[in-house]
Amino acid sequence: MSQFRRDVVTGEWMIIAQERVGRPYQFGEQDDKSLCPFCPGNEHMTPNEIMRIENDGEWELRVVPNKYPAVCAQDGLMYENTLFYSTCEATGIHEVVIETRFHSEALHHLNTDKIFDVLSVYKKRFIELSQLNDIKYVQIFKNHGKNGGASLRHSHSQIVALPFVPQRIEQEMEGALKYYQNEGRCIFCDIIKKELDCRERMICRNDHFVAVASFAPRFSYEMWMIPLEHQEMFCFASDQILMSLADIFKNTMQMMIKTLGEFPYNLVLHTAPYKFTGNYYHWHIELVPRVSHHAGFEIATGTCITTISPEEVTQLLTKK
Amino acid sequence: MSQFRRDVVTGEWMIIAQERVGRPYQFGEQDDKSLCPFCPGNEHMTPNEIMRIENDGEWELRVVPNKYPAVCAQDGLMYENTLFYSTCEATGIHEVVIETRFHSEALHHLNTDKIFDVLSVYKKRFIELSQLNDIKYVQIFKNHGKNGGASLRHSHSQIVALPFVPQRIEQEMEGALKYYQNEGRCIFCDIIKKELDCRERMICRNDHFVAVASFAPRFSYEMWMIPLEHQEMFCFASDQILMSLADIFKNTMQMMIKTLGEFPYNLVLHTAPYKFTGNYYHWHIELVPRVSHHAGFEIATGTCITTISPEEVTQLLTKK
Repeated sequence: MSQFRRDVVTGEWMIIAQERVGRPYQFGEQDDKSLCPFCPGNEHMTPNEIMRIENDGEWELRVVPNKYPAVCAQDGLMYENTLFYSTCEATGIHEVVIETRFHSEALHHLNTDKIFDVLSVYKKRFIELSQLNDIKYVQIFKNHGKNGGASLRHSHSQIVALPFVPQRIEQEMEGALKYYQNEGRCIFCDIIKKELDCRERMICRNDHFVAVASFAPRFSYEMWMIPLEHQEMFCFASDQILMSLADIFKNTMQMMIKTLGEFPYNLVLHTAPYKFTGNYYHWHIELVPRVSHHAGFEIATGTCITTISPEEVTQLLTKK
Repeated sequence: MSQFRRDVVTGEWMIIAQERVGRPYQFGEQDDKSLCPFCPGNEHMTPNEIMRIENDGEWELRVVPNKYPAVCAQDGLMYENTLFYSTCEATGIHEVVIETRFHSEALHHLNTDKIFDVLSVYKKRFIELSQLNDIKYVQIFKNHGKNGGASLRHSHSQIVALPFVPQRIEQEMEGALKYYQNEGRCIFCDIIKKELDCRERMICRNDHFVAVASFAPRFSYEMWMIPLEHQEMFCFASDQILMSLADIFKNTMQMMIKTLGEFPYNLVLHTAPYKFTGNYYHWHIELVPRVSHHAGFEIATGTCITTISPEEVTQLLTKK
């Protein structure tokens, strides 16, 4: 059984998930579709399907429980004991979204209708999982490529429903609250305004989104895709907004690939938790290329060194 | 010129260091000593030496300025401007400790006298750099191996003197302060007591140190080496204590290598800043093997998933 553990000094939650050690790794020389649990014909290799999208009698997308979960559904509340070291069973839900039936088709190469389907499924699962007892946050993310931390090549994303709001989200929400208290405005709305004004870090925009190179990035070429209209929670996004997100994601990836070639990346969704009632947060997606590396300095300090500025990134990516 | 930039949402400091992009990378197939700037005979390839340790007329260890610094000495205070986005010149000092004259000799394979020399030089530079105007924190760290983020194979560590206390240190200090206010004791002293009592995570100990597998690790096999006697600042360590640290580092590495083989790692020193006057912090060294990987979930949440518990690590490493 996986465990949550709290760092006694910093208070950060960590997860020890011994079950995950057994998960298959398919980035070796062998890349055999017949062994791929996400390929058509191998549906029996995944736990019982949660939902699917079909077309002409064939599935196009499936959501399944993660066979090697970091967290596991359990009755009972998250508890934090009062002994020196706090541990508890790592309760929660861990799901996988198989984004396409085709083994070698990457999310960013799907057409926008298909990317929209993936985003709609994120939203549907986000709402359903958020309503479960004891779930405080639903984290949606994607690992693409070996350096992105993917263990299977077949394109997929992951959804982890947690009984606590993770520290990184809390930290962003605290920063946003502080700004709101001082300025009376949403900090992300002000970021959008600033970026649309100066355009130094704007990669592209469309009706509902802007993609900007992060002003103070943790990784080289880090991008934020932010909805133009203020919206605290991802699950408020209309179909129109999700279609716009599909479009800006695909467009941003195409512009990046022109410069970087195909590259490993993580996609992380940051949103206010479902039961949030404030109005100072603003959901967005962070696209994190894994072409730079964190070493001793970053681990020691939390201060990340990158060797290309977001303004240079923007010039490279938007040059004619 | 490198820049400090503050994340507007979280307040975290980042560094954009374009000069570092030009630094040599010697983990390719070529590993030619004649091109190694840290090898004897190539002393002209490094900037002017800051100090050295000699034996029989030959240098054994050199400290030189980093030729591709993340931060640069400048007059004037660190300033934080009041515009929406804060940037300023990345002032500070970035030095390299060339730990041995031998190209292929790793720090953990030096004899303890030589490791002691390296630690003594850390202490000397820590004190000297800490006394400079505008320096608020001196971060000492080491990147070993390609996955540890080293760009040169020749064994070396780095010292970065900064005009601010980095967020990770602040976070640890805040946690330690809170514990001290509640319990009236140093949290690290209580960790030591707990670990010496239960022994579930104790890898080894000697007269002045204990090495424990971190209770809530950010990386698999993460180790903390903590001085048994309460001491806020690294620069208070006597020669006896530094010799003991050399011994426990070498011993811990040997035990780990028996299980993992040679492995990439980061070594990070966490200490109270030089001008600190409280008594609630306790310096220590974190040894972070880079055999596990942070992916989308860790980047999104700050919660790290590892697949081996520190208790299992301890069993593996201490079994007869």
